[in-house]
Amino acid sequence: MSRPLITLTTDFGSKDHFVGTMKGVILGICPQAAIVDISHEITPFEIAEAGFVIAQAYRYFPKQTVHVVVVDPGVGTSRRPILAEAAGQYFIAPDNGVLSMIYARETHKVRVITAEKLFLRPVSQTFHGRDVFAPVAAHLARGARPAKLGKLIRDYLRSDFDRPTRTGKRYWTGRILKIDRFGNLITNFPAAEFSVLERRPFELTVGPHSVRRLVHSYAEGGYGELVLIAGSTGFLEIATNQASAAQMIGCAVGAQAELAVW
Amino acid sequence: MSRPLITLTTDFGSKDHFVGTMKGVILGICPQAAIVDISHEITPFEIAEAGFVIAQAYRYFPKQTVHVVVVDPGVGTSRRPILAEAAGQYFIAPDNGVLSMIYARETHKVRVITAEKLFLRPVSQTFHGRDVFAPVAAHLARGARPAKLGKLIRDYLRSDFDRPTRTGKRYWTGRILKIDRFGNLITNFPAAEFSVLERRPFELTVGPHSVRRLVHSYAEGGYGELVLIAGSTGFLEIATNQASAAQMIGCAVGAQAELAVW
Amino acid sequence: MSRPLITLTTDFGSKDHFVGTMKGVILGICPQAAIVDISHEITPFEIAEAGFVIAQAYRYFPKQTVHVVVVDPGVGTSRRPILAEAAGQYFIAPDNGVLSMIYARETHKVRVITAEKLFLRPVSQTFHGRDVFAPVAAHLARGARPAKLGKLIRDYLRSDFDRPTRTGKRYWTGRILKIDRFGNLITNFPAAEFSVLERRPFELTVGPHSVRRLVHSYAEGGYGELVLIAGSTGFLEIATNQASAAQMIGCAVGAQAELAVW
Repeated sequence: MSRPLITLTTDFGSKDHFVGTMKGVILGICPQAAIVDISHEITPFEIAEAGFVIAQAYRYFPKQTVHVVVVDPGVGTSRRPILAEAAGQYFIAPDNGVLSMIYARETHKVRVITAEKLFLRPVSQTFHGRDVFAPVAAHLARGARPAKLGKLIRDYLRSDFDRPTRTGKRYWTGRILKIDRFGNLITNFPAAEFSVLERRPFELTVGPHSVRRLVHSYAEGGYGELVLIAGSTGFLEIATNQASAAQMIGCAVGAQAELAVW
Repeated sequence: MSRPLITLTTDFGSKDHFVGTMKGVILGICPQAAIVDISHEITPFEIAEAGFVIAQAYRYFPKQTVHVVVVDPGVGTSRRPILAEAAGQYFIAPDNGVLSMIYARETHKVRVITAEKLFLRPVSQTFHGRDVFAPVAAHLARGARPAKLGKLIRDYLRSDFDRPTRTGKRYWTGRILKIDRFGNLITNFPAAEFSVLERRPFELTVGPHSVRRLVHSYAEGGYGELVLIAGSTGFLEIATNQASAAQMIGCAVGAQAELAVW
Repeated sequence: MSRPLITLTTDFGSKDHFVGTMKGVILGICPQAAIVDISHEITPFEIAEAGFVIAQAYRYFPKQTVHVVVVDPGVGTSRRPILAEAAGQYFIAPDNGVLSMIYARETHKVRVITAEKLFLRPVSQTFHGRDVFAPVAAHLARGARPAKLGKLIRDYLRSDFDRPTRTGKRYWTGRILKIDRFGNLITNFPAAEFSVLERRPFELTVGPHSVRRLVHSYAEGGYGELVLIAGSTGFLEIATNQASAAQMIGCAVGAQAELAVW
């Protein structure tokens, strides 16, 4: 009774024909599908950013939704296409760690996709979004059984971009996961695990810039002061009152963030 | 027989997961809905711009369409969510005046939305687009009766951003409603009410720049000359031949425009 | 049994209400249609770029798809709206040559659209996307017979922007069809017809810049060196390793590219 639902998250942008072409392939196979764009403006090749974005969105989709995530620096190499089943939904992506935040939060199974008869032939070297991921997603949405796509595997790639690395008793190295529309820098420091910053002096450094104050609302920061705030995403964000922290710092997604706590 | 239709107009941009997440909520409740994006590139917090955009679009949608307009600087405060019924269609928005141009043009009824059982729980402080407006729109599109959402009210907020204020016998103060793709500045001076500019000397001032000539086609203006033209939107627009008036003037949506007529 | 499918390719951008309005018109007439955006970010008035984009995409859509292509510098003049039938699909566009790459690749028939009773009335001077192309596409998607739209014609406009002009024994003049997301410049030199560049010295000049080397992968180029590569589109592309060739050259879509071969 329910209508097949497929989402797309890519770094293809919206100027070119790439996304439209994937939708043509999908609707040719599964005409009844509803297709929802999560974002096509992922920074090119930024796997962690795509992983963060899909992790923010999937919980709000119904069971059986097929999420396609194509940020794929390894296209044309031997990296494998995979299907993950988690939270009653499906995730189709290259096996490059982009689903790591899903793995961290949900019980999951992962299959390597080997059902080449479902691919568009010939498979190009550069556009697996169209030739592999789109048709597989459409067949799954139409009712193909996951086991028909390929075997369960355990050696899928799992990254830890969703949390900083501890590098000393008082030191952690993290990264900028995402820059939002307002120029706030979303780090990979989970707010709940770093509540110590409410009570102890700290310094979070990105390039030559540093942040020393945790606030509870943007307005608490002085004009032009960089502050840290627990964002709605569950991560600590670097922000500045009424301006773009990203512009002030001049950094990009993927930049390193060093934390010292005293 | 007809298919439920929901439109979205927001200032959420298309880089983040926000819009996709709203669509997930909608399709979870009303799987058959067609969802149409009007624009997600409204200047952040610019209520008048969003009000202008939805007012340009709604007449071209069929009866029963549910329009969701979320430009919501007051999210998390006590501002109310409302449902307006006008022109046989539905409009769901925060009660911040964003529907004023609809009120001005159409017979309408307004309800305060109090049916909290339709909201996603818990309702976040920052994302009512997902937690309040999307699910209410989806239930309405599925057939919920408007009276079930809340009571009729008369004290909804109504702004007059769709027309300038008369500030003297020969003076009006207006504003820039929108900057279009070509850099034309759409003012809130209704062309029909200011046809006097065809016959009398005038000066329209935006910051340090002024416009003194009304033309009927872009080509009438000299290269680099700012001119006024009656646009297809029904409002006077500041334009310049073969270039971007917005870049020349260096102004943003919401800027003031002062008119003097002699 | 299949669901009507309509694609849109325009230079309307995604900030304004234009595209949403066209979709309102379409869904009012054909509520079951799936609408797919190919791109709305065509450079304003760049007919060749739109022609290139739709030519890259159409083959991946099912039979009976209705493609609407609106890049229309002549809107409001006497240029005609046309319907082309090719590859089992439909193409609706102004008769300005935008479909030339389809004509070059597929057996086709072209009709002039004269069925004014299908248009929105009154037809505006500036927005035939909404008043002419959208409603005609929707009626066609709903099952209107092509012959009802207008008569077959032979004098439709056909441009040759998809190939360079030979200007001498060793000289060709081509153009930049498209700049992709990574700043690569896609020329209109078909790679298959210029395989001679693999064996002979050549110089391809765009403004003051020139390219003298054909490579097989981006990595072959030195850092900052402009190289030529046969792209996935079938055309030669000007690229540079790890940087934007468009920014280096500072050129726009439509720029001239001069080739000399020795």
